[in-house]
Amino acid sequence: MSGNYAIGVDFGTASVRSVIVDVSNGLEIASGVYQYGKGVDGSFFDPHDPLVVRQDPCDYLKGLEKSVQTAIHEGKKKQKTFSAGSIIGIGIDTTGSTLLPVLEDGTPLSELDQFKNNLNAHIWLWKDHSSWAEAEEITRAAQHSHPEYLEMVGGTYSSEWFWSKILHCIRIDKAVNDTAFTWVEVADWLLFKICGCQDIKTIKRGVCAAGHKALYNPDWNGYPSRDFLASLNSGLGKIYDSLKTSTVLSAKNSAGVLSPEWTGRLGLEKPIAAVMPAFDAHFGGIGAGIKPGVLVKTIGTSTCDLMIAPTEQKRPVIPGMAGIVLDSIVPGYYGIEAGQSAVGDIFNWFVKYVQPSGKSYSELTREALKLLPGESGLLALDWHNGNRTILVDQQLTGLILGLNLQSSPAEIYRAFIEATAFGARVIHEQMEKYDLPIHEIVVCGGIPRKDKLLMQIYADVFGKPLYLSRNSETCALGGAVAAAVAAGSYPDFETAIEKMTSKSDIVFHPVAEHQHTYNELFTLYRGLHDAFCARGTVQDLSKVMKKLLEIKRRAAESNKTGRQQNFG
Amino acid sequence: MSGNYAIGVDFGTASVRSVIVDVSNGLEIASGVYQYGKGVDGSFFDPHDPLVVRQDPCDYLKGLEKSVQTAIHEGKKKQKTFSAGSIIGIGIDTTGSTLLPVLEDGTPLSELDQFKNNLNAHIWLWKDHSSWAEAEEITRAAQHSHPEYLEMVGGTYSSEWFWSKILHCIRIDKAVNDTAFTWVEVADWLLFKICGCQDIKTIKRGVCAAGHKALYNPDWNGYPSRDFLASLNSGLGKIYDSLKTSTVLSAKNSAGVLSPEWTGRLGLEKPIAAVMPAFDAHFGGIGAGIKPGVLVKTIGTSTCDLMIAPTEQKRPVIPGMAGIVLDSIVPGYYGIEAGQSAVGDIFNWFVKYVQPSGKSYSELTREALKLLPGESGLLALDWHNGNRTILVDQQLTGLILGLNLQSSPAEIYRAFIEATAFGARVIHEQMEKYDLPIHEIVVCGGIPRKDKLLMQIYADVFGKPLYLSRNSETCALGGAVAAAVAAGSYPDFETAIEKMTSKSDIVFHPVAEHQHTYNELFTLYRGLHDAFCARGTVQDLSKVMKKLLEIKRRAAESNKTGRQQNFG
Repeated sequence: MSGNYAIGVDFGTASVRSVIVDVSNGLEIASGVYQYGKGVDGSFFDPHDPLVVRQDPCDYLKGLEKSVQTAIHEGKKKQKTFSAGSIIGIGIDTTGSTLLPVLEDGTPLSELDQFKNNLNAHIWLWKDHSSWAEAEEITRAAQHSHPEYLEMVGGTYSSEWFWSKILHCIRIDKAVNDTAFTWVEVADWLLFKICGCQDIKTIKRGVCAAGHKALYNPDWNGYPSRDFLASLNSGLGKIYDSLKTSTVLSAKNSAGVLSPEWTGRLGLEKPIAAVMPAFDAHFGGIGAGIKPGVLVKTIGTSTCDLMIAPTEQKRPVIPGMAGIVLDSIVPGYYGIEAGQSAVGDIFNWFVKYVQPSGKSYSELTREALKLLPGESGLLALDWHNGNRTILVDQQLTGLILGLNLQSSPAEIYRAFIEATAFGARVIHEQMEKYDLPIHEIVVCGGIPRKDKLLMQIYADVFGKPLYLSRNSETCALGGAVAAAVAAGSYPDFETAIEKMTSKSDIVFHPVAEHQHTYNELFTLYRGLHDAFCARGTVQDLSKVMKKLLEIKRRAAESNKTGRQQNFG
Repeated sequence: MSGNYAIGVDFGTASVRSVIVDVSNGLEIASGVYQYGKGVDGSFFDPHDPLVVRQDPCDYLKGLEKSVQTAIHEGKKKQKTFSAGSIIGIGIDTTGSTLLPVLEDGTPLSELDQFKNNLNAHIWLWKDHSSWAEAEEITRAAQHSHPEYLEMVGGTYSSEWFWSKILHCIRIDKAVNDTAFTWVEVADWLLFKICGCQDIKTIKRGVCAAGHKALYNPDWNGYPSRDFLASLNSGLGKIYDSLKTSTVLSAKNSAGVLSPEWTGRLGLEKPIAAVMPAFDAHFGGIGAGIKPGVLVKTIGTSTCDLMIAPTEQKRPVIPGMAGIVLDSIVPGYYGIEAGQSAVGDIFNWFVKYVQPSGKSYSELTREALKLLPGESGLLALDWHNGNRTILVDQQLTGLILGLNLQSSPAEIYRAFIEATAFGARVIHEQMEKYDLPIHEIVVCGGIPRKDKLLMQIYADVFGKPLYLSRNSETCALGGAVAAAVAAGSYPDFETAIEKMTSKSDIVFHPVAEHQHTYNELFTLYRGLHDAFCARGTVQDLSKVMKKLLEIKRRAAESNKTGRQQNFG
């Protein structure tokens, strides 16, 4: 396999990145990035509904073409042994559910003249939460007639997912609904396009998306029953019918070969293997070296926590864990997906939107680094965009307390980072409670490589070392790993992961003193968490503010002593 | 009395203002302001303890001299019939407890060479909360042996008050404690100075300060018992002894006449009557036209709520109402004082310290005015500086919830204003619950005249019209009214108040729709209030976030419709 290369293509929220990696060792030799050109950073918003976030499919096709071309061009310059002819496969990932209404031949409705200015005919981005009422409706209906559907998604159906979004569109836009033949995940649609398919009835749909978002499960022979869907709305019955002829496949199945058109458009020399697409974080899990006992945490605008469990065990059932799907991450294993709805997005809101003192990330970080755990006196809940795991509730909001007249922007900033760490710890503890022991945490994504403050806080709050993945583009790398398997370079995913991925030398170890304080703060966080969530247990919160002040005073004293020691 | 004038002098936290008013009608003819020159806006801070706030007594004496001189100078220019010789009296108010350690002749310790750089030898400003632990200690001791002491202050002794501050200084600074003969309220000390007194043992102390802050009460023959104080610390026993020879007087008692030295320094032509000083808000109550059934609310960095009750009624006992003192506001009535520890200070923290988007007060106000009640989706607790009434607890902190990734600076700003309105409503409801019906609310202070957003929110939250006082400088006017009585221009305070004060034509009426939404939000506020306070009752908070979102959606819908109506 020496001299062979695979392409991984990672479609993010604002841009797409393609990387070319050496199949023998997984090292990246070149990459290309394309920023979406439409809307604001690729997204369209509705001034009347802040929950709406849409995109244009043109950006995806153009981004694929440009980013791969750039990567190949760079690869040729950087590596003499590389040529477009040495590329053997391609693996694509996207966000999800990121959905598109299409005609029977796969044409997006947004390309039709009558819909070009209609946001509902465009891509409904994963973080579009305008379907919150429909999500609640689906949850209620399933509680009533099909509780088994909810069990696989942690108890609550989300507004980010397949059926919620389609049902909302049916309700608000008859024209789009009447015109659409079906709805597709953009990831599946991209595979459909690059393989030159013409009939959306036979589109291959990835089990990753179908299983995690569309309630697809072999236990009930696939999608939810037609009766169940039609009872919500007859339009959903029509969508059900449109899915019947499509197949649901995992990354272990051969997906297809590039069409001549796309072979040309990407600048390849010959048609190559295309693997079944997956969601970004899932390929990220592969690229970060996932295996049983290893938690892979992708930290970006939101976070995604992935684990896999061998199929010899019985299928894990973990309350609040919204995605446990066979084959969804690594074929042959249960894929467990959890996550937080907003992490980087909270920091971004605070720094770029609230703009405290006009201070930059690095200024706030520098100041926050001078604080000891607990010294801010602040405690926050990381629910600005709802809570995905373990509460599965979009109708929650952010909170901060402990504010006084000296509370500084850096203190607040640090408190929000800590809140996301506490939120993550709730997820980890739930996993471990339900027989998924975490022996190692490997982090990847945009934030870990540049944010030492966050990494140290996370290590201290988790009480475990945090390892950084070797490759920075783990999602794209995961696509390339899957492509290498699809192209036959490795016999199975385990071997490919072993050979092509690795941790970096960078590791953050917890500091015992910090851990101690954070354990105290986590107990308070957990009290707030349990008090304010919808299934909330009634909590005695009357000591929270006093306890925070006590911790603050102790931390300030200890920091003063520490400083005196340092400078005295 | 025509042709007679009185001077009112109002010492604030950052400056002092003197006004000259016409005794016949209370109209202001001239004023002079002096900004304290020492420290930051007159205050010194301790970088190691954010609770410490100290001032220099020099600023007070210099400020008195300069501001009166300026006022007289301006008066002569503006009003032909006015001359320094037509001034008949002077009334001084200050913040409190604002305390100063002094020698036996009244010299402030801060004037001694060995203490000039020692903050503990300076003025301990009212909002200095470094004595919080001593306040708790005094509360516990009184609960144990003298519950009657606590009853008069609403159940909890405050860190802002006389004995807490002195006890804290005894604990932390032996040199200051050993050198000080006694401690005085700056208001009393100013009277002592301008009357040319030399012996601090005979200083006249105002009942306003003694009664509201030092647990002075005729029911137990004055100050708390020596045994009680000495059991806390023998140093307090020494202070008790130093108080024995001083007298405690109300504004109805003659206080003194200006010394020749100060007659000259102020630019007067003859010695004039000086009335017993009071706290700023108390004279403000007089200047705003207080009478039974009228709540006077002074809104500034903090707020003060004043009412008076006739002595024919039995002495009111209102849980959490920290000051109910005979003669303290208007002689012959019980004075009831309540308030919020931070109001303008919270806005100032947010706008000037957090500096969201670098937006000014007026920009934030303009944006916040476009929102309907509930539209922000946010709910806050106004406890950034603790809660004075009705919880009497400095160890509480601010909170905000309902945050999402679109929460804007203006929304947060508005939520903090609303929080202060809800906090005020808790106070009002407590007063009314304990037989102090509020027939009318008159507001004064720095904020009401310039902040229409706040005034409308307050009217809507209270469900009552808000009247603005005619004079903007009500505290100084109150001093002048008291001085007019002391000088014999009126037979009693009731008559002087009737003749010299009035409401303005400006009134804010509640809007029924807003009232309705704020009633809903107030219920949620009250739930948080009761959950997080130290005597907290356990509350079910699991519906709060959802309820806020529901109100937010309704408000946003209604605002959209309203806008369409407005602009369509």
